[in-house]
Amino acid sequence: MSKIFVDACFGKETPYTPVWMMRQAGRYLPEYMEVREKAGDFLSLCHTPEMAAEVTLQPVDIVGVDAAILFSDILVIPNEMGMDLRFEKGEGPIFDKPIKSIEDVEALLGGEEAAGKLTYVYDTIKIVREKLANDKALIGFTGAPWTLATYMIEGRGTKTYNLVKKLIYTQPELMHALLAKVTEVVKYYLEKQIQAGVDVVQIFDSWATALEKDKYFEFSWNYMKEIASYIKAKYPHIPIIMFPKGIPGFLDEIDGDFDVFGVDWSTPIELAKEKLGSRYVLQGNMEPCRLYSKEATKEAVEHIASVMGGKRHIFNLGHGILPDVPVENAKYFIKLCKNVGKDF
Amino acid sequence: MSKIFVDACFGKETPYTPVWMMRQAGRYLPEYMEVREKAGDFLSLCHTPEMAAEVTLQPVDIVGVDAAILFSDILVIPNEMGMDLRFEKGEGPIFDKPIKSIEDVEALLGGEEAAGKLTYVYDTIKIVREKLANDKALIGFTGAPWTLATYMIEGRGTKTYNLVKKLIYTQPELMHALLAKVTEVVKYYLEKQIQAGVDVVQIFDSWATALEKDKYFEFSWNYMKEIASYIKAKYPHIPIIMFPKGIPGFLDEIDGDFDVFGVDWSTPIELAKEKLGSRYVLQGNMEPCRLYSKEATKEAVEHIASVMGGKRHIFNLGHGILPDVPVENAKYFIKLCKNVGKDF
Repeated sequence: MSKIFVDACFGKETPYTPVWMMRQAGRYLPEYMEVREKAGDFLSLCHTPEMAAEVTLQPVDIVGVDAAILFSDILVIPNEMGMDLRFEKGEGPIFDKPIKSIEDVEALLGGEEAAGKLTYVYDTIKIVREKLANDKALIGFTGAPWTLATYMIEGRGTKTYNLVKKLIYTQPELMHALLAKVTEVVKYYLEKQIQAGVDVVQIFDSWATALEKDKYFEFSWNYMKEIASYIKAKYPHIPIIMFPKGIPGFLDEIDGDFDVFGVDWSTPIELAKEKLGSRYVLQGNMEPCRLYSKEATKEAVEHIASVMGGKRHIFNLGHGILPDVPVENAKYFIKLCKNVGKDF
Repeated sequence: MSKIFVDACFGKETPYTPVWMMRQAGRYLPEYMEVREKAGDFLSLCHTPEMAAEVTLQPVDIVGVDAAILFSDILVIPNEMGMDLRFEKGEGPIFDKPIKSIEDVEALLGGEEAAGKLTYVYDTIKIVREKLANDKALIGFTGAPWTLATYMIEGRGTKTYNLVKKLIYTQPELMHALLAKVTEVVKYYLEKQIQAGVDVVQIFDSWATALEKDKYFEFSWNYMKEIASYIKAKYPHIPIIMFPKGIPGFLDEIDGDFDVFGVDWSTPIELAKEKLGSRYVLQGNMEPCRLYSKEATKEAVEHIASVMGGKRHIFNLGHGILPDVPVENAKYFIKLCKNVGKDF
């Protein structure tokens, strides 16, 4: 059965423009909070396939999106490469022993061995794919090597990225060694996700915005492209979505073997269309805070629809949905995207 | 006596391209740390003109910049409008009673009355102007109304800006009331800084990057433009520098009555030149983390110099210098900018 979402990723005509939301399986949903409380903590939820599958499926039923996205965390990769990971309330993820030297990089588990440890992810995918309707797509994902390596070096969220930036300007070879190692794991990880049943993969580069242009291409985009080429060569039927957050000034240089470019909210959709719309399908890009207001949501959906004209486009937010958004407004957004221009 | 820096702001030919650094009076300088320790805390340093003047002057002597920038904090404005301000170690500025309603806005001190309370700032300027060499410029500054109002609503630094964004999408009229009130204070504040002796003013919009395009122009740029027009009409001999941080995707719509556009590091200098270089002098934009390495510094200075060709340009960083940068590297940057293309 053909999936509207997959067709749209390949730029084929579809009966309507499909829609999903980044972080759609998240804290704004009371049903998610229930499962998460049962799980105990966030990481246990990621580690328990039955529960992770349940929250993956929730937004399809509750808010009506066209694709489910695997519930997991980008940091399971460094975690299985051997770095202890914990989540602190109010602060987020923490690696107590961040990477400081080439010996630290060499001590990490790599390649298929590390990817092979993420069985709970592949098991989650198998459960979801069994339960998900055939016409809905399942999106697998990974963090981009740059974003993962930044966490591995900073050890936690950062405002200035000064540790990782000091590294790229003073010991670029160490950073490249780490990025190359993470890249190998990511390739196997996405491959195993595909073998387990995902229909589409997205690479999230949440911290793209931390780098100036030349360094972005050197330390991030080149590795993302390498992953995309590897996957595309082996699995040409699987669409690849790239989401580098916050690089509106660099769009002229974007290239590579992928299908969909995820547009964040800081990049005007007109600009993305002008620079990339003929080469890639565009996904996005409503500012997620518009979900606080139905009026603001309607205004943006109509604007984006008018720019894209229902072609080569997938509706989404320009970043993850926030925990304090009313579920009703999220449902309204989804309904609006699927019925834009119609009375409903 | 003509000041190279002022001439450069007006796009006149100068013997070399002048240079200064955002946060040049800051923690990377041991001499600054000494004065700050004497002052006790950051806010006391801002409130003590003799000491504030001393740290304002330090980088002129120590690292050799062409302009001093008034040492102060952008949040002295909301503080004197009536909001209690404290600085918490590791967290930064905190307003314990953030703005929540129109009554809160109305209760704030406004206009000349609030600006009149910032006497310690004007006294600092007078001391600096007396001690500063005649050929060096003194830059006054303010936070942009959007950045100030964001702090006033969030109460502290924020990753998601969800409080202020909820406000702009659900109660825009409350946000505009606050912005209008802050804008009035800023006009008087800059005027009084000019009367006290600054040669140039810069408006810092550090949180420009938090808004999508349309909302940026509605809630920030329009107020910055209003301030610039007001100052330009009364003080045409005072150059105005606008620094909206992180809006590379919006440069096409930038307009207004000011002289210099401050380019942040996320905006490629080529892009800024193409979009704005014929209308405004450009300031910037080396990625401040390049200061960790002399080699990376040299590469960037030479690149920026080659793009700008020594015309209509002021060297600077693309954001503030970080505390852990070696002073030696900061000196090297300044020397390099003044001697680019020469052996020295």
